[in-house]
Amino acid sequence: MGRQEESVVRVELLSYTGDPEAVVVAAIRQCYSSIGARELKKKTDKETQRRLLAQIMASGHTSTLEHASFTFVIEGISRTAEIHLVRHRIASYSIQSGRYVKRGKTKYTIPPEIIKNKIVLKKYKNYLKKCQEFYNELLELGFKAEDARMVQPQSVQIKAVVTMNARALRHFFELRCCQRAQWEIREMANKMLLEVKKVAPIIFEKAGASCLSQKICWEGDLSCGLYKSLRGRLGKRG
Amino acid sequence: MGRQEESVVRVELLSYTGDPEAVVVAAIRQCYSSIGARELKKKTDKETQRRLLAQIMASGHTSTLEHASFTFVIEGISRTAEIHLVRHRIASYSIQSGRYVKRGKTKYTIPPEIIKNKIVLKKYKNYLKKCQEFYNELLELGFKAEDARMVQPQSVQIKAVVTMNARALRHFFELRCCQRAQWEIREMANKMLLEVKKVAPIIFEKAGASCLSQKICWEGDLSCGLYKSLRGRLGKRG
Amino acid sequence: MGRQEESVVRVELLSYTGDPEAVVVAAIRQCYSSIGARELKKKTDKETQRRLLAQIMASGHTSTLEHASFTFVIEGISRTAEIHLVRHRIASYSIQSGRYVKRGKTKYTIPPEIIKNKIVLKKYKNYLKKCQEFYNELLELGFKAEDARMVQPQSVQIKAVVTMNARALRHFFELRCCQRAQWEIREMANKMLLEVKKVAPIIFEKAGASCLSQKICWEGDLSCGLYKSLRGRLGKRG
Amino acid sequence: MGRQEESVVRVELLSYTGDPEAVVVAAIRQCYSSIGARELKKKTDKETQRRLLAQIMASGHTSTLEHASFTFVIEGISRTAEIHLVRHRIASYSIQSGRYVKRGKTKYTIPPEIIKNKIVLKKYKNYLKKCQEFYNELLELGFKAEDARMVQPQSVQIKAVVTMNARALRHFFELRCCQRAQWEIREMANKMLLEVKKVAPIIFEKAGASCLSQKICWEGDLSCGLYKSLRGRLGKRG
Repeated sequence: MGRQEESVVRVELLSYTGDPEAVVVAAIRQCYSSIGARELKKKTDKETQRRLLAQIMASGHTSTLEHASFTFVIEGISRTAEIHLVRHRIASYSIQSGRYVKRGKTKYTIPPEIIKNKIVLKKYKNYLKKCQEFYNELLELGFKAEDARMVQPQSVQIKAVVTMNARALRHFFELRCCQRAQWEIREMANKMLLEVKKVAPIIFEKAGASCLSQKICWEGDLSCGLYKSLRGRLGKRG
Repeated sequence: MGRQEESVVRVELLSYTGDPEAVVVAAIRQCYSSIGARELKKKTDKETQRRLLAQIMASGHTSTLEHASFTFVIEGISRTAEIHLVRHRIASYSIQSGRYVKRGKTKYTIPPEIIKNKIVLKKYKNYLKKCQEFYNELLELGFKAEDARMVQPQSVQIKAVVTMNARALRHFFELRCCQRAQWEIREMANKMLLEVKKVAPIIFEKAGASCLSQKICWEGDLSCGLYKSLRGRLGKRG
Repeated sequence: MGRQEESVVRVELLSYTGDPEAVVVAAIRQCYSSIGARELKKKTDKETQRRLLAQIMASGHTSTLEHASFTFVIEGISRTAEIHLVRHRIASYSIQSGRYVKRGKTKYTIPPEIIKNKIVLKKYKNYLKKCQEFYNELLELGFKAEDARMVQPQSVQIKAVVTMNARALRHFFELRCCQRAQWEIREMANKMLLEVKKVAPIIFEKAGASCLSQKICWEGDLSCGLYKSLRGRLGKRG
Repeated sequence: MGRQEESVVRVELLSYTGDPEAVVVAAIRQCYSSIGARELKKKTDKETQRRLLAQIMASGHTSTLEHASFTFVIEGISRTAEIHLVRHRIASYSIQSGRYVKRGKTKYTIPPEIIKNKIVLKKYKNYLKKCQEFYNELLELGFKAEDARMVQPQSVQIKAVVTMNARALRHFFELRCCQRAQWEIREMANKMLLEVKKVAPIIFEKAGASCLSQKICWEGDLSCGLYKSLRGRLGKRG
């Protein structure tokens, strides 16, 4: 089996709300001024955008960020990471059906810790091969894909189209870019963050784990410690 | 008082997910095939788009419609219509603050039934004038806008930036384009529908009250009857 | 007009999830142990409950709090406060319809600042009387309640049945028990908090404005300052 | 391996909103009458409850059903069924963590079609044994549970605490009690329905697949046909 089985999470931005930062700025201005639609549609200059966006993010009044949404195509995440992903309920998901799509040729996630250990890696790949063979055998025997897939290991990779708005994304990054998140969803989250930074650089400038975005670490005794060093550099809150 | 007080709901589409129907079609294909991101990003031809979109809408499996979202600027709706609007929870709202924005010059909604009756209309306008004067007086006396606005009638108009995805919008239209909806929110919903038809014509082709979109009327004895005549033209369900 | 017009927000707990803290504790144990349903249904002792609930609230991993929900009957809030309330989307609302229910005898909210000023209070009450008279007149002339209510001032009081789960409630209290919230919804939130403390004392022990619950103030320059004094007493975070 | 591996979905009702049908009826009365909290708290007689609940369910105006929520303990569903389950976003989930809980002794789901075929069943059980052995081996080698579980087949069973309100539950039953749903989640949904019928018999009397609850089948050419025979018995809609 080739390198296709190795874990490579792929993330592409498929589409997003046109001019996302201008839209959010229009919504902010709607809340706090009496200007009408015509004026709201005129774009403000970059400096005003930056100032208004910084204000709402500092105050935590971020509902206006919901007006900008982002749609990703995700490939190469395991069932395990999928389960982490879909627990975020303020989001939309379209995921390849394991009931309808037969997976004669499937890719699998291999954890980095396994890749590092050549002997275990060989066993792991051999195991995946056996799993795939049993899955294929069940299909050949006439069992439905929905029953056959029960034997596929959780490392089996899925593909998904995922949409989240900017507020939900920032929350997603707070939880999933954190060192304490599962490595695979963290890789996915970091790649999503890179993508949205290209099209909404101000909104996502300080996005990331909560130690970055809020200057707070919620992990208590399990904290990775990054938070403490960041506080020194960033200035304490309050 | 001039014509500015008359009820004119204004709706403009501020922004939306780029290429909304292509995005939804990519999500549909994601669910039911094994193609990857690269191919998903290629646009399909109009005929395939139309066929796939028709399929999901006929079957009611419309979660893929959530990937396309639409942001409107709304002007000229009363507090009453606002309350109807914000009860739709799968949506994002940014609404002019009555606590922070002083409304020295406010517009008011006048119901069509009042406009038809010249004597009552005169009384109504005179009443609004007195209301506005008392509001202004309270501000001048030093009361906060958040307290002064308590005396404003519910016909006072607000402005809002509203975002909904295509699935939520179709549901919104089913309830609010219905003859039984309050006239003002119906006017707003119909104008929103016109706007989204321009940029997502297939998705919203049959959108509207549930008699149009689902061939079902839920209103029982209170039905306007349009449903029955449509069933003749559209063919019965089932 | 009598004391019925004065602002008295009334809050009663109508129902709630049976044994709310035991339910949440069962959910916490489900996440972190391999015990099954039978054992989960056995109640744990108060000390274990207290320890497990304290852990999840300190770490911010509060999704288990969603399993306990609380239903309130609310009376005596104005349309203005209603609009603040229903913007909380993770909640369920049943609110007296202004379209179907005619309000021949309506109560109104009077802001405390107005009550303090006898001259203005007299004017305010006289104004409300005129408003009610015009509303009644429109009904008598045959206009629908949905049109007539356009003339009612925003101080008109509504009644509502409201359900929120414990996680959403704690967030609601963070925003609405804050000194910076509108006085009327703050009064309502404080009364709701008193009610739930009776039936879920551990979950809501430290609930309230975010300065209490999270030891964080998000209000920046607009902060009431309570936060700073509390930090001294509570110990700094991190 | 014993019978413990066979698919037996277990569902228990852990808790629910006290007096769920009386709470919903209070909410309905709140919407359409001017009575206050004191009277709302008085229970209405069974006949009035039945009539009001029937009205809102016939008209589709079911938001009042949200005030009653139900919490289940679920055992014996596979990862596959879990993924179906958690896609319902208007619900709360607490699910045994595969990152923190080591599963030395795990149960697995076996599809009924496999159980019927003795030769395949033997192979399937043997396969599960090998899977479990490799999982255990990885743990012994010092790999984290979050990496080792990648090799577990999707038939591995999980345990969950799940809360949904009555409106969301009715929708869940419409989709998941349907003959076209995956067999395992259908079994789970049917057992959940039995449980809630005991404590809210009027609300869930006609709950089930949409052919039962709405007299509509959405499955088009893929319909199981039950719908057609029910229409004869139930009378056509419209």
